[in-house]
Amino acid sequence: MQSPRPRPRNLRLEVQYDGTGYHGWQIQPRLRTIQGELTRTLESIVREPVHVCGSGRTDAGTHALAQVCHFHTTSHMDSSSLWKALNSRLPATIRVTGIEQVAADFHARRHARTKHYRYRILNTPWCPPFEYPYVHHFYRILDHEKLNRAAELVVGRQDFSAFCDAGSQARSKIRRVTSSLFVFDTRRKLLEYNVCADGFLHHMVRNLVGTFLEVGRGKLPVEAIPAILESKNRSRAGPTAPAKGLFLVRVFY
Amino acid sequence: MQSPRPRPRNLRLEVQYDGTGYHGWQIQPRLRTIQGELTRTLESIVREPVHVCGSGRTDAGTHALAQVCHFHTTSHMDSSSLWKALNSRLPATIRVTGIEQVAADFHARRHARTKHYRYRILNTPWCPPFEYPYVHHFYRILDHEKLNRAAELVVGRQDFSAFCDAGSQARSKIRRVTSSLFVFDTRRKLLEYNVCADGFLHHMVRNLVGTFLEVGRGKLPVEAIPAILESKNRSRAGPTAPAKGLFLVRVFY
Repeated sequence: MQSPRPRPRNLRLEVQYDGTGYHGWQIQPRLRTIQGELTRTLESIVREPVHVCGSGRTDAGTHALAQVCHFHTTSHMDSSSLWKALNSRLPATIRVTGIEQVAADFHARRHARTKHYRYRILNTPWCPPFEYPYVHHFYRILDHEKLNRAAELVVGRQDFSAFCDAGSQARSKIRRVTSSLFVFDTRRKLLEYNVCADGFLHHMVRNLVGTFLEVGRGKLPVEAIPAILESKNRSRAGPTAPAKGLFLVRVFY
Repeated sequence: MQSPRPRPRNLRLEVQYDGTGYHGWQIQPRLRTIQGELTRTLESIVREPVHVCGSGRTDAGTHALAQVCHFHTTSHMDSSSLWKALNSRLPATIRVTGIEQVAADFHARRHARTKHYRYRILNTPWCPPFEYPYVHHFYRILDHEKLNRAAELVVGRQDFSAFCDAGSQARSKIRRVTSSLFVFDTRRKLLEYNVCADGFLHHMVRNLVGTFLEVGRGKLPVEAIPAILESKNRSRAGPTAPAKGLFLVRVFY
């Protein structure tokens, strides 16, 4: 008689990654992606097919301090051994920072309540090579007060169509932004834009930042922000800021 | 009648670089090197052959906060324009941080009096992907006091044969180390070894660090350091620490 097939466990991972050199989160044939590397590595350890489900996609070149994902496995391996095996086999650009068994119905994407993204801008004449992959280097003079006045105007439950790239499959473009704030490190001339929302549309943070920078450098008035939101017209907003300044900081459940 | 050939100027550059992905400082055929990139870029700007002379070589994967080099050119381009042209044409991993005209006989290598190197060690259970290219990740427990007692023992004018890799072309292995000190950032669990000397032998800093780490983790007693120096025998010292933790911080003239 065969032993009964073990009941699969649901495991939740927290993952930190340097998005440089990856074609984003989502698995794609013949391209290096975060989900692809995690899937391949997990399958080599648990020796069964694995579906890694993340809280959401991140763009090519975008980083994460704590992306959350889950997967089901029949493996009996304890969490601590699995953690060690993962970090010893994954590329150094991807680190599993936490692993825990969760309820069978926990779902990293569907149950995510709030996400916190950070966008880093280095406002210096030249960019140190060591910062280059992790900031948007912007050398023009920026008005900090205007940046935060503009940032405040996107807080609330609003239609973000004007900040959503074409090709988005989202049915509704309405999102609730619960905080939107620039934090300034004046010594390092580093600007960090922090934004929390119940969800984000395609390129939404990068389009917001691209627009705020137009305000900060004086090309757009602060008052343009409500008008752009109202227009629901992507072409009214500013350019998409580069992916490499963007970090997924935390996902709240 | 032709105008007289302009008198060549001697220009001194300060250069910051991320050594990841470079085969070190020294120009080599068909390999990507810092000196090679600087030479190619300068020649494309001043439109004449250029010899870029650095204060010394750095290993493949080693970084610099302020490498110094000089070159002669008959170009009339002002320093500020040359600086801008360089930083706009160089890869983002190499930045010219300063440029100035110096006396015709200034020599970046021969006139260097002291060099300051820093070696960064991250003493954590796992290494964040964003730190990975710029630290030696060492997870074993280290005795900070022993590290600094060992480091102090190499100060002075001594024969560093035991810390010099075979194949070195240096005639004398005697160097004067003027400071040798670990600085601990206990919050970040970052250890920075700082060393200044009138010159360094091949792999000297990395061999010193590799040996200090053996002391710090308790595999070698502090008292082994004078014995190793005395032996002049490379095989008595510890392993060569990885290149990616090493930074050329400053060159004094």
